[in-house]
Amino acid sequence: MAKVFLPKGTRDLMPATMNRRLMVIDTVREVFARYGFEPLETPAFERIETLTGKYGDEGDKLIFKILKRGAGGERGEVDQALRYDLTVPLARVMAMNPGIPLPFKRSQIQPVWRADRPQKGRYREFYQCDVDTIGASSPIADAECIAVVHDALMALGLTEFRIRINHRQLLAALAKAIGAESEEASMLGALDKLDKVGRIGVEKELIERGFSVDQVSKLWAYIDGATIPGATEAEAELRVIMQLALDMGVDPDRMKLDRTLARGLDYYTGPVFETVLDGEYSGSISGGGRYDGLISMFSGKDDVPAVGVSLGIERIFMLMEEMGLMPDTATSTQVWATVFSEQTRSATLEAAATLRAAGIRVAVSTRVGKLGKQFKEASSRGVPFVLVCGPDEAAAGMVVLKNLATGEQLKGEAAQLASELGG
Amino acid sequence: MAKVFLPKGTRDLMPATMNRRLMVIDTVREVFARYGFEPLETPAFERIETLTGKYGDEGDKLIFKILKRGAGGERGEVDQALRYDLTVPLARVMAMNPGIPLPFKRSQIQPVWRADRPQKGRYREFYQCDVDTIGASSPIADAECIAVVHDALMALGLTEFRIRINHRQLLAALAKAIGAESEEASMLGALDKLDKVGRIGVEKELIERGFSVDQVSKLWAYIDGATIPGATEAEAELRVIMQLALDMGVDPDRMKLDRTLARGLDYYTGPVFETVLDGEYSGSISGGGRYDGLISMFSGKDDVPAVGVSLGIERIFMLMEEMGLMPDTATSTQVWATVFSEQTRSATLEAAATLRAAGIRVAVSTRVGKLGKQFKEASSRGVPFVLVCGPDEAAAGMVVLKNLATGEQLKGEAAQLASELGG
Repeated sequence: MAKVFLPKGTRDLMPATMNRRLMVIDTVREVFARYGFEPLETPAFERIETLTGKYGDEGDKLIFKILKRGAGGERGEVDQALRYDLTVPLARVMAMNPGIPLPFKRSQIQPVWRADRPQKGRYREFYQCDVDTIGASSPIADAECIAVVHDALMALGLTEFRIRINHRQLLAALAKAIGAESEEASMLGALDKLDKVGRIGVEKELIERGFSVDQVSKLWAYIDGATIPGATEAEAELRVIMQLALDMGVDPDRMKLDRTLARGLDYYTGPVFETVLDGEYSGSISGGGRYDGLISMFSGKDDVPAVGVSLGIERIFMLMEEMGLMPDTATSTQVWATVFSEQTRSATLEAAATLRAAGIRVAVSTRVGKLGKQFKEASSRGVPFVLVCGPDEAAAGMVVLKNLATGEQLKGEAAQLASELGG
Repeated sequence: MAKVFLPKGTRDLMPATMNRRLMVIDTVREVFARYGFEPLETPAFERIETLTGKYGDEGDKLIFKILKRGAGGERGEVDQALRYDLTVPLARVMAMNPGIPLPFKRSQIQPVWRADRPQKGRYREFYQCDVDTIGASSPIADAECIAVVHDALMALGLTEFRIRINHRQLLAALAKAIGAESEEASMLGALDKLDKVGRIGVEKELIERGFSVDQVSKLWAYIDGATIPGATEAEAELRVIMQLALDMGVDPDRMKLDRTLARGLDYYTGPVFETVLDGEYSGSISGGGRYDGLISMFSGKDDVPAVGVSLGIERIFMLMEEMGLMPDTATSTQVWATVFSEQTRSATLEAAATLRAAGIRVAVSTRVGKLGKQFKEASSRGVPFVLVCGPDEAAAGMVVLKNLATGEQLKGEAAQLASELGG
């Protein structure tokens, strides 16, 4: 028996899964490209000093460290570590390429590695999918974050979503307005749980965190629409961004200003976005915002304007499977070319070549004869059509194409049949 | 100044490079899929015991090792290592999935990592690109290795190539025929240098290795076409494979039986293939063969028939650049939408949305006004068209599209112009 295993928390992406993932990635990549975001790839590992201290103490523990080659490694020394996200590598790229034309709009779809405790649907290797605009403070860059998420989800058929939008400065004004300027982080920590625990739960938490009943009732009044002193500028900025997103074609019903949205407040400096699905499939599938302080972490320069958004691509793969939005075939092969006998094999291969030249995906059976068995092989793999070329067909320069689901048969020259198949 | 560096031997793949690489990978992947090879991805790292001892002592030293998390890691213990090739992971997948339907035809295009001394064009992270058919001894599987390489190179425009074909058993018979049965490896070691050192160089090397002048002259006679005793079966097999490849559409001028081809003899057991470019760009760009003993390394079962071929994708990227086969644009963005003023911005964004919906890639300027500067920005990035929407155009529901190379201008509704651009 096999005495070989996968590393903990990892998986093989078998062909049926990979075909679907590639379809999703191609769709997303095309949407990104239509907005001028161009692909970047960075190495799987970075120098250890590039990564340490960037993700907090908890994050640091989850970084996979690579042993030095040679004598240092034998002493347990480490010089490199696997990529933990796509943002620190982007900041490194910007620092190392000071002459790069700005704005630099890049998309990046690559795996990252985190030594988290593995659990259902959570792996130690997973893909991240980010777009960012570096070097532009224009609200167009913020609006594009909304528009690419909108267009990507629409293109994937995940149409029941809502993009929630808020502003870091609006939240700061909100904390100030309830007299909790120095407890902003605490207020946001409680608010962040609104989706999970509801208003009553948040109230309980705020009281436990030392907020007064009066502060809590003021908070709800502001959240429900009362004018927040000092938030005018932030709200005006959000209105501009949302108008630009509308101009870009975003459906107004799929985006909303939400004063409770509090995500990732540690480094966001302006607008923040989060996308949730409506209905039974709750939870975030995308998030981002403006983070004008982060990109200069290595360059030591002043703040560099930056805004970006991340699609939760692993979650999207999973949800699309659950919601039946993925093609239900295990294979991308369209035709299984059976081999009737060694005498007809050449004719079969020539027909297969004709279909392929028309763009059709044809696997040729590696068995000879016993067509019933070859048909079963095709059908158990989920290949929709079989091609048959017996002695009569071979003599006439024809083949038979059979739809395994309907039993329907077409007979003709391979070139004709290719166009029937949409090739 | 930036105090941050890339790890030794690695590089960032910037957008201009990535656009070209993705184009090549998409082309290759599509050719693979047309033959029924479906994509597989395996994790970046494997358990250390899966990899050690598989690549020889020299190879073992080049494996990047990952420190254990927790206390073990603090003592310098290692439990995982980065993928070194795509074949050992495939053998692991086969061992862990004994129920997988055979033949299993997979393609895999992923990076591998080797701590080699970096040199020009050689990196410590590089992509491999393999197709393999596991579980079929049919010569169709061998012929498909030839056909996919042929079709992929043709599709990429690398048309001046020759696929050399030989057979492990023919080489064994050749060694026996010159009385060097137990010196086969030594004979092949010398023959392998034929391309580099020519016949005189190989002769010299053979003599140094202890072969007699008589053995050397016999060797040339066999290589030049004399019948090799005991090679009949291998030659018949190669003739079948080459006929099948012809049936699949392979150009006969681009494949040839070559009795001197000796590649990677350590694990190949049957036919072997190698592709070289003709003319000034010499050297191998693809290689493979049948290796019936390798896949069972983890399963402990009997030999599993296996044949595969690897495209030297990094070398192909490099050669295509050198040969001018890559698109000469630095960007895949087709239109740079300038913003005349804040008043016309909405109209500009709507036009951009119309172009995008027609499949055109449009980046919107994040600047406002000073169109000359915006034009320069587009042209310095290599974007071929600029879109202009001034107050008159906005009022008329029109835009102007200018070809920056020719100066030609088109004015019309965005939807019309989209079809002019081929959207």
